[in-house]
Amino acid sequence: MRIVVLAGGIGGARFLRGLKAAEPAADITVIGNTGDDIHLFGLKVCPDLDTVMYTLGGGIHEEQGWGRADETFAVKEELAAYGVGPEWFGLGDRDFATHIVRTQMLGAGYPLSAVTEALCARWKPGVRLIPMSDDRVETHVLVELDGTRKAVHFQEYWVRLRASVPAHAVVPVGAEGAKPAPGVLEAIAEADVILFPPSNPVVSVGTILAVPGVREAIAEAGVPVVGLSPIIGGSPVRGMADKVLAAVGVESTAAAVAAHYGSGLLDGWLVDTVDAGAVEEVEAAGIRCRAVPLLMADLDATTRMAREALTLAEEVRA
Amino acid sequence: MRIVVLAGGIGGARFLRGLKAAEPAADITVIGNTGDDIHLFGLKVCPDLDTVMYTLGGGIHEEQGWGRADETFAVKEELAAYGVGPEWFGLGDRDFATHIVRTQMLGAGYPLSAVTEALCARWKPGVRLIPMSDDRVETHVLVELDGTRKAVHFQEYWVRLRASVPAHAVVPVGAEGAKPAPGVLEAIAEADVILFPPSNPVVSVGTILAVPGVREAIAEAGVPVVGLSPIIGGSPVRGMADKVLAAVGVESTAAAVAAHYGSGLLDGWLVDTVDAGAVEEVEAAGIRCRAVPLLMADLDATTRMAREALTLAEEVRA
Repeated sequence: MRIVVLAGGIGGARFLRGLKAAEPAADITVIGNTGDDIHLFGLKVCPDLDTVMYTLGGGIHEEQGWGRADETFAVKEELAAYGVGPEWFGLGDRDFATHIVRTQMLGAGYPLSAVTEALCARWKPGVRLIPMSDDRVETHVLVELDGTRKAVHFQEYWVRLRASVPAHAVVPVGAEGAKPAPGVLEAIAEADVILFPPSNPVVSVGTILAVPGVREAIAEAGVPVVGLSPIIGGSPVRGMADKVLAAVGVESTAAAVAAHYGSGLLDGWLVDTVDAGAVEEVEAAGIRCRAVPLLMADLDATTRMAREALTLAEEVRA
Repeated sequence: MRIVVLAGGIGGARFLRGLKAAEPAADITVIGNTGDDIHLFGLKVCPDLDTVMYTLGGGIHEEQGWGRADETFAVKEELAAYGVGPEWFGLGDRDFATHIVRTQMLGAGYPLSAVTEALCARWKPGVRLIPMSDDRVETHVLVELDGTRKAVHFQEYWVRLRASVPAHAVVPVGAEGAKPAPGVLEAIAEADVILFPPSNPVVSVGTILAVPGVREAIAEAGVPVVGLSPIIGGSPVRGMADKVLAAVGVESTAAAVAAHYGSGLLDGWLVDTVDAGAVEEVEAAGIRCRAVPLLMADLDATTRMAREALTLAEEVRA
């Protein structure tokens, strides 16, 4: 079975671990969000790609969900001692090495997709990880800061400001001119199932869908497209998805997120059991819906979620 | 008193600590060797400048003589895990931060002299540290490796090969077209005393003197120029200076190094007490010479050495 997954960071990576456990023989291609990539200290940092790579490759900081296990922060401390920031971005020593290798390879002219493949040669994530695009796309958020509207990098909004200021728009800068990375459209065209994990529907899955050709390819693939709600009982399971949903005018409910993706894209939608009341509404909108436990509490729970998604996909297919 | 010191790495830095203790009120300008600078992982590394900066600023690894105290090597280990080297160069995590700041500032267009000043704003070495040149000079060594002659970067010769292969020439590539950094010629012209610490006479002091205009400015400054022999009893006190002396056809003796600098440049020369027999030979060559203990065993011993150098300078002046 060939499965394509559109993944953001932590939520996507954890779901993928469950999916691999649920279908060990599956051929999984992950299309990774690069909209939250950022340049720091002259280095190209790709938080979502790295979270997937580290999580599936056994290098992740388990409790935190991002960054490396057994991480130290000597470089960052020293940079701060020189007065060099930003201090709000937690770049660890082990993590630095990944960005150094990536930046050097990009500098040599390799596209990000080739660099990601080279980094994965070490981590062996057990999936094919492709960035959504080799072109630069950078998600900016239009915020209200000290009384004036200002566009800030997504990481600044998310990490420094903790999404605590009003957001008026989320713009994947550069997306309209970006091309899908080599292999993205091919993987979608050859997929048996396409899954949207419980990643952020705006700044993770939404950004991937903003790359011209990706949404169309998924809609036209003719295979089941099934998503899992990142919203449980009106709140995001983790992160601050409600804030960016509000910025794009979408209510923070499992049903509203399904409607945001739309029946033209989505064939099936899993909501949590606490949102069982939404099933009818989602189905009325033309999307098959099931209520199942959606908390990725551990690998077992996550594996069951992945199985439910694949089961729903088979229902849709039949 | 305005003192100018031409310094390499460890030997120069330790001598400077003694000089500061000997003359706390002196206005000291250090002209630092940049011939052993190297680019690693896209970063500009200046080992000699950093050794002086860390030593005088209290950040040095005392036993080792180079690199940072309390250093860790997570970045280097991770780079190795990606298959990225060289592994023979010991770049620590704390040290990395210095190179990141330097490389970013150089990338922004600041000359190395301005970058060094910015880095020193943190370390407060208590001297004015100026690179010999803002232009790139890179010392290469013509070695015999596996039967063929080959030019290697000085660091490769020194650190990887441990100076254990035959060296036929030492070439400061780029020196002939380099200009002294801003402040170098001015400091020499305004100096009351010019000192050559017991640094490597070929690849440290020699490289600084290879920048057009520096040797001439020192010779014409009209102030005492006093050096301290890095060779004691026929061997270098530390490092492998004998190997590079041989490469340029100079015997490894205190007298031969004095003659290598020459009476046109050097007014006074300190040799160790074990080399007291060389005093006559050096003086016959027109260089005033004294035999004093030259082992920089601790700060007290080093301070006494600096005092002896200044005393000899005053003798020369009188």
